[in-house]
Amino acid sequence: MSKSDIGLIGLAVMGQNLVLNMADHGYRVTVYNRSADKTETFLQQRVEDRPIVGAYSLEEFVDSLSAPRKVMLMVKAGEVVDHFIELLLPLLEKGDIIIDGGNSLYTDSDRRTKYLEEKGILFIGTGVSGGEEGARFGPSIMPGGNPKAWSSVKPIFQDIAAKSHDEACCDWVGQGGAGHYVKMVHNGIEYGDMQLITEAYQLMREGLGLSADECQQIFAEWNKGVLDSYLIEITANILSFKDEDGEPLVDKILDAAGQKGTGKWTGISSLDLGIPLTLITESVYSRCLSSLKTERQKAAGIFPKQQVALSVDKQETLTAIHDALYASKIISYTQGYMLMSEAAKEFGWELNYGGIALMWRGGCIIRSTFLGEIKAAYDKQPDLQNLLHANFFESAIKGAESNWRKAIIFGIQSQIPTPALSSALAFFDGYRSATLPANLLQAQRDYFGAHTYERVDKPRGEFFHTDWIQSGGNVSSTTYEV
Amino acid sequence: MSKSDIGLIGLAVMGQNLVLNMADHGYRVTVYNRSADKTETFLQQRVEDRPIVGAYSLEEFVDSLSAPRKVMLMVKAGEVVDHFIELLLPLLEKGDIIIDGGNSLYTDSDRRTKYLEEKGILFIGTGVSGGEEGARFGPSIMPGGNPKAWSSVKPIFQDIAAKSHDEACCDWVGQGGAGHYVKMVHNGIEYGDMQLITEAYQLMREGLGLSADECQQIFAEWNKGVLDSYLIEITANILSFKDEDGEPLVDKILDAAGQKGTGKWTGISSLDLGIPLTLITESVYSRCLSSLKTERQKAAGIFPKQQVALSVDKQETLTAIHDALYASKIISYTQGYMLMSEAAKEFGWELNYGGIALMWRGGCIIRSTFLGEIKAAYDKQPDLQNLLHANFFESAIKGAESNWRKAIIFGIQSQIPTPALSSALAFFDGYRSATLPANLLQAQRDYFGAHTYERVDKPRGEFFHTDWIQSGGNVSSTTYEV
Repeated sequence: MSKSDIGLIGLAVMGQNLVLNMADHGYRVTVYNRSADKTETFLQQRVEDRPIVGAYSLEEFVDSLSAPRKVMLMVKAGEVVDHFIELLLPLLEKGDIIIDGGNSLYTDSDRRTKYLEEKGILFIGTGVSGGEEGARFGPSIMPGGNPKAWSSVKPIFQDIAAKSHDEACCDWVGQGGAGHYVKMVHNGIEYGDMQLITEAYQLMREGLGLSADECQQIFAEWNKGVLDSYLIEITANILSFKDEDGEPLVDKILDAAGQKGTGKWTGISSLDLGIPLTLITESVYSRCLSSLKTERQKAAGIFPKQQVALSVDKQETLTAIHDALYASKIISYTQGYMLMSEAAKEFGWELNYGGIALMWRGGCIIRSTFLGEIKAAYDKQPDLQNLLHANFFESAIKGAESNWRKAIIFGIQSQIPTPALSSALAFFDGYRSATLPANLLQAQRDYFGAHTYERVDKPRGEFFHTDWIQSGGNVSSTTYEV
Repeated sequence: MSKSDIGLIGLAVMGQNLVLNMADHGYRVTVYNRSADKTETFLQQRVEDRPIVGAYSLEEFVDSLSAPRKVMLMVKAGEVVDHFIELLLPLLEKGDIIIDGGNSLYTDSDRRTKYLEEKGILFIGTGVSGGEEGARFGPSIMPGGNPKAWSSVKPIFQDIAAKSHDEACCDWVGQGGAGHYVKMVHNGIEYGDMQLITEAYQLMREGLGLSADECQQIFAEWNKGVLDSYLIEITANILSFKDEDGEPLVDKILDAAGQKGTGKWTGISSLDLGIPLTLITESVYSRCLSSLKTERQKAAGIFPKQQVALSVDKQETLTAIHDALYASKIISYTQGYMLMSEAAKEFGWELNYGGIALMWRGGCIIRSTFLGEIKAAYDKQPDLQNLLHANFFESAIKGAESNWRKAIIFGIQSQIPTPALSSALAFFDGYRSATLPANLLQAQRDYFGAHTYERVDKPRGEFFHTDWIQSGGNVSSTTYEV
């Protein structure tokens, strides 16, 4: 009996579809699942005559693989990954490869890379994006970990990955946790993209009083222009989907969104690294707020919205919403790239920023025409310091700026929350301000805590303290931190 | 030679001032500093005839204390605290008390409480706020840790603490890391208060074109009303402070603010606990953005601000800014209290929310009339679910709401960033919305990831999946998380 090219553990939707995808590209795959039932059902219902075999013990599973063995885990991120690593270790040989394709925290992947290297096992922690459809027909794959494993895994990954203009949406990201870090930022950006769409939707639906069908037409139209993207496309599809009673299904869905894992990790990492990732973090918080459904219903009784009669031009307002969404999306990606750039400095990765845009260009949830523009910007200028410095995005922001303000003002007047659109504009207005009122803030910190400050008329690195109230000791603070 | 009531290690500004404060209340204090010079200078320059003695070895230091020994650390948070704990352990006896008064991370205080309890030593991790002046004449003190230590420490702490209407701004907060958690949230709120003031200042200074002196008068005036607080007071003082050349000193201060530690920890904790702490986190991010001074200067050249001629009434706009600051401040404290309440659930603390307001009412940087209203709200209704449900704050928000919108719109039109004011309004408009567009977001997640959703017409806890594109397997996602 011939050996399999790769083995996959964990037959939830993503795992099943990746296996089918690999098999369709001619790879022989052994599958294993903790509950044998799931393996049986999968083999009976979905495998057909593909080169996929089931294993019912880890020994049998490992024995079925050709050397160096490639074992891909598609299991719940966290302890379950470590659990399987420990179960596999006694069964594997030096040079074998363990791949974690879940949404693991990058620090865990970093730790696992080092831990397994000590044991002679090569670890890959890889982001896989694209949802069930992507996994089935071509996901975006972002591998990092032990670079010695890459050559063995590369053919399979690049074959099954999505293609963008004939290039695979998969390339080596970097050492240790780099792959999962980039996937984490991808997911954070996905949180942002989704939140922006919902804000635009609420402005149309509630602010302009449009029907789901009218909104569907607008998103479908937008999908032909600069906003062309998978998420805009599925939004249009969703809005046209009718429930059994003929009403839009979206109206029957509870407005309480889950959040955990990658979105919040992106926010946490940005706080740790000191990068103002405002839009994604506001998007995570919006999900948190949405989940407080009962409390919101109570508050709606205490603070009923005022009846306002805004006289706005519908078409102009729709264009303003479009431009606000576009400009805010540029800010979100700018912030995401700022974060990856700082993380690369912090963790010693050499990230290929254009390559990352290419990986996201197809296969994954955030795939879009837009990412082609980011790729083009980095191709043109590989050392680009900030996306907003690229001509394309500079022009795009300038073209959208006035409408961006208009849309947010419309939201404020309509009492419709636009946390992501607003935070993006606030970031932009701060970023483009040579002077911010942080001088007053520094004065406050020096006033109450003797934190010292720098001066605009002195070189950086020279610190001054003023005895603002002409009392107290002549000491500067070293322990009290605010 | 008589023994000291308490010993303090670490003679930076906060440590020195706490020692003088204790001595002024009749406590005999032994002080120790790693560099003996600092001890000598302190003794010579500031101690005068107070009952303060210096020690030049930890042995001498510990020997000089009466049992149970109370050793207070005022050293840099982090490893230095653990370092001193290890140095002290062999010198202390069972029942002795170590107090950490630095800005330690609550999880560290939790760990230290448990670790020292195993060794028979009682640990207190306490927040101390008020800056140098507070430490000297009455800080706010927020102790947590091992409750067995409280009775020994209580008299000293409550004597040296600030008083509000004859009550000490110090009371037991809770087990383990509770004291430092509450101090962390205090500091986060302080970040928010400071950011709000700087936004209001920039709207006046740049938006309305007022001088520093005019702004000073306005803040001084505001300090007589609902905004009466230490930070508004010192803002007025700062704005009137002239540099040697007669110009406002604030204009000479570099607008690049530091951030690390407690502000970002508050944001991180809120993300971990799923509480939408938008305003404080935006305030932390604003400091991050301010620190990118060179990049901002470059961006200012790429994106010069448009010349806009807004015709606004100065007095009306000032009132709008005032109301926006007030309403946003209410939101910030609401979010902070939501966070503490969730943390209490998560970590098993029984927090006294009115008591916390009392502790913050005096002595600390965020002290204000406003905190008296929070205390009153909890006195009236100890099981208050949310600050916005209290009549006082409900009315305050309703009274300010229309001006709040006006001020933010003024900022947007003037191209002045108001991330904190804007995020507060977005939170409010979300919180008071019975329905948010998260239904669309849930549909998207179910579309691409089979995440399932709940329905408005079915009981909570029932999950549905739609095969939106009528393809793919009949499986729900369990591993792919977004």
